[in-house]
Amino acid sequence: MTVDGERLVRRLKELGAVGVDQDGRLTRLAATDADKAGRDLFVRWAKEAGLKVLVDRIGNIFAVYETPENSGTAPIMMGSHIDTVIDAGNFDGCYGVLAGLGIVETIMAEGIHLARPLVVAAFTNEEGVRFTPDMMGSLVYVGGMDAEVALQAVSIDGKLLGYELERIGYAGKLDPELPAPEAYVELHIEQGPVLESLGMQIGVVEDLQGISWQRITIDGVANHAGTTPMDLRRDAGYAAAKIMEFVHERAMEYNTEMVGTVGSVHFEPNAINVIPSRATLTVDLRSPKEERLLEAEAALAEELTSISNALGVTARSEILARTQPVQFCDDIVARIEQVAELRGFKSVRITSGAGHDAQMMARLCPTAMIFVPSAKGISHNPDEYTPDRDLINGAHVLLDVVTDLAGKH
Amino acid sequence: MTVDGERLVRRLKELGAVGVDQDGRLTRLAATDADKAGRDLFVRWAKEAGLKVLVDRIGNIFAVYETPENSGTAPIMMGSHIDTVIDAGNFDGCYGVLAGLGIVETIMAEGIHLARPLVVAAFTNEEGVRFTPDMMGSLVYVGGMDAEVALQAVSIDGKLLGYELERIGYAGKLDPELPAPEAYVELHIEQGPVLESLGMQIGVVEDLQGISWQRITIDGVANHAGTTPMDLRRDAGYAAAKIMEFVHERAMEYNTEMVGTVGSVHFEPNAINVIPSRATLTVDLRSPKEERLLEAEAALAEELTSISNALGVTARSEILARTQPVQFCDDIVARIEQVAELRGFKSVRITSGAGHDAQMMARLCPTAMIFVPSAKGISHNPDEYTPDRDLINGAHVLLDVVTDLAGKH
Repeated sequence: MTVDGERLVRRLKELGAVGVDQDGRLTRLAATDADKAGRDLFVRWAKEAGLKVLVDRIGNIFAVYETPENSGTAPIMMGSHIDTVIDAGNFDGCYGVLAGLGIVETIMAEGIHLARPLVVAAFTNEEGVRFTPDMMGSLVYVGGMDAEVALQAVSIDGKLLGYELERIGYAGKLDPELPAPEAYVELHIEQGPVLESLGMQIGVVEDLQGISWQRITIDGVANHAGTTPMDLRRDAGYAAAKIMEFVHERAMEYNTEMVGTVGSVHFEPNAINVIPSRATLTVDLRSPKEERLLEAEAALAEELTSISNALGVTARSEILARTQPVQFCDDIVARIEQVAELRGFKSVRITSGAGHDAQMMARLCPTAMIFVPSAKGISHNPDEYTPDRDLINGAHVLLDVVTDLAGKH
Repeated sequence: MTVDGERLVRRLKELGAVGVDQDGRLTRLAATDADKAGRDLFVRWAKEAGLKVLVDRIGNIFAVYETPENSGTAPIMMGSHIDTVIDAGNFDGCYGVLAGLGIVETIMAEGIHLARPLVVAAFTNEEGVRFTPDMMGSLVYVGGMDAEVALQAVSIDGKLLGYELERIGYAGKLDPELPAPEAYVELHIEQGPVLESLGMQIGVVEDLQGISWQRITIDGVANHAGTTPMDLRRDAGYAAAKIMEFVHERAMEYNTEMVGTVGSVHFEPNAINVIPSRATLTVDLRSPKEERLLEAEAALAEELTSISNALGVTARSEILARTQPVQFCDDIVARIEQVAELRGFKSVRITSGAGHDAQMMARLCPTAMIFVPSAKGISHNPDEYTPDRDLINGAHVLLDVVTDLAGKH
């Protein structure tokens, strides 16, 4: 079987043109007018293909392909999200949703009778830019967050999610009458440089990193940079530098089992000739192993104490986000690897560094992900790019895995 | 002889109440209405004391005490400045000017006949907050900058200095007909913690640090904090941390011969989950020894190259300011030390970490400075404080040194 690659590429472009703001930036934040326009386009395509479209209370869209023979059995679900960050690229999320739709169309066109229904999901607010938390739609869907609570989320522009979903026409009245999926497979761009740098076509995603986000605030004493001897300083900026260095070097030691980033820092008063009285920095630690993450968090806490004592500053840490690593389903991971090989694609097992709806779905059913290369690893950026050939390769792997999982009738 | 300590303390308070803005902050920036009000008050006090007041083209005020016997001989000059930073304290600069005035009044009251005139100078725009460069009035006075050029300086609020001085009535038409001083002695608060921490009453300032200010810009590559392996990163933030650490630790090694500060830093895009593409930081290096400063600058340049090569980033540096260290006059320094001892004050030789008009005056005539303690080393802040006793002690040392330098008639 062959997916219609040309159609997939054309649709990605067409959806990518929906929600371009006055500055020419693609910005389809969750439950905005732009998001509505994107949703409407996806729903139109799904309905034109003859699929049934369901919307649940949190606004997740499910495009369902079922036959009288398989109706009522647990479906195989594909999908991702179509909301975007600010100034986004065309591929993040949309690729998994539109490839899923294309696969259903291929199977329908080929007249294959599957033992299970297929569902293509577009989850609400995966990016988490307009509403917190991210991956909200899938989190609510798997029962990890109460829908009523989620609908009370307030956007960065001061609107209630429930109100906004109602306004754009995507507030489903009930949970959709779908049995829990038998399996979930999400196709996504890598958003990192590994596949490209290894010359691989397919990333077989076996796990997803846990994330630990902290904000660290260091309080020292502001003083004149010229008149305060080095040994009488309580320099919050120097303490921040030591922490930045620790985060980076600790992660380096763990090699592929950890990444650590200080992406954001702020000094006060931030003047050339004043010793910083306060430094605020963020720490982003990720590991596919919970044990490593716990170790790194403990080591960082210890380092904060030791730096504070040594430099006469105080340091406090605040948790901004914390998720555990996710192990995907061995069986599905192995199938992905097999079908990639059968199609003649070079594949490698890989860890997802970013968060995805699949990590929520893994709580509900056997789940895995398929990655395709991201040029230069760039994502969340208009320069996000995956060559057509790679996009189509990924869709073929998804087609084969899903067909395999759904079984012939 | 005894200075009128109560009057000195009262005048500092009175001048400190001039130029308080709507937010209750003392802000007497050079050549503003607030500065005019401060200048007017000083001029009124000087005239009430019977002094002749001269103003030169750059707005420096000279209150002159001369007698028929000593008129025309090179004077002994005291002074400092009365412009302030934003949200300033009462003592920085004003102390040296008002103590100088009080000393002239004491000598007049005592009926002492000096062999040389006394001059109390209030130099224009020492702080450099509203116009660049700082210490501008004294720099122009000693011939280090052309008055015409200085008068073209544009303020942070877009006004020409020449226009502003004209507007507030402090644009003197000619260079004042004063012979170059025989000596200059500036009394100032320390603005650092050394005297207080050592339990000393008087700082005998033997030299003044050279200052090297640089802005360093590091360019790396922005990438996803979760998906970019540590060894594929070009992290501008980590490079910045290494530089911050180097600046601090290099200065620590030199102990009292160097201070080094990174007071200001900025990351781009400055997001928790994005590896910084750019980091900008300032470096403030100071040393009383030019040789040390040159060494540290060279070591920093070398470090930038080595960090750039190691981390795959580029680093460039831009000089923001550079002054050479100043050695004050051995003879005056020794006299200060002697009179402090005769008065029974505990004194210590000290290096000025901050810039002062005295460093400009040292180009023109034998010069030195006297420091009194700053509580907790705080300056450029409303919490700037020196106990009355210390203020009066310093004035007595200045009185004795100036009387000594001027000689009896």
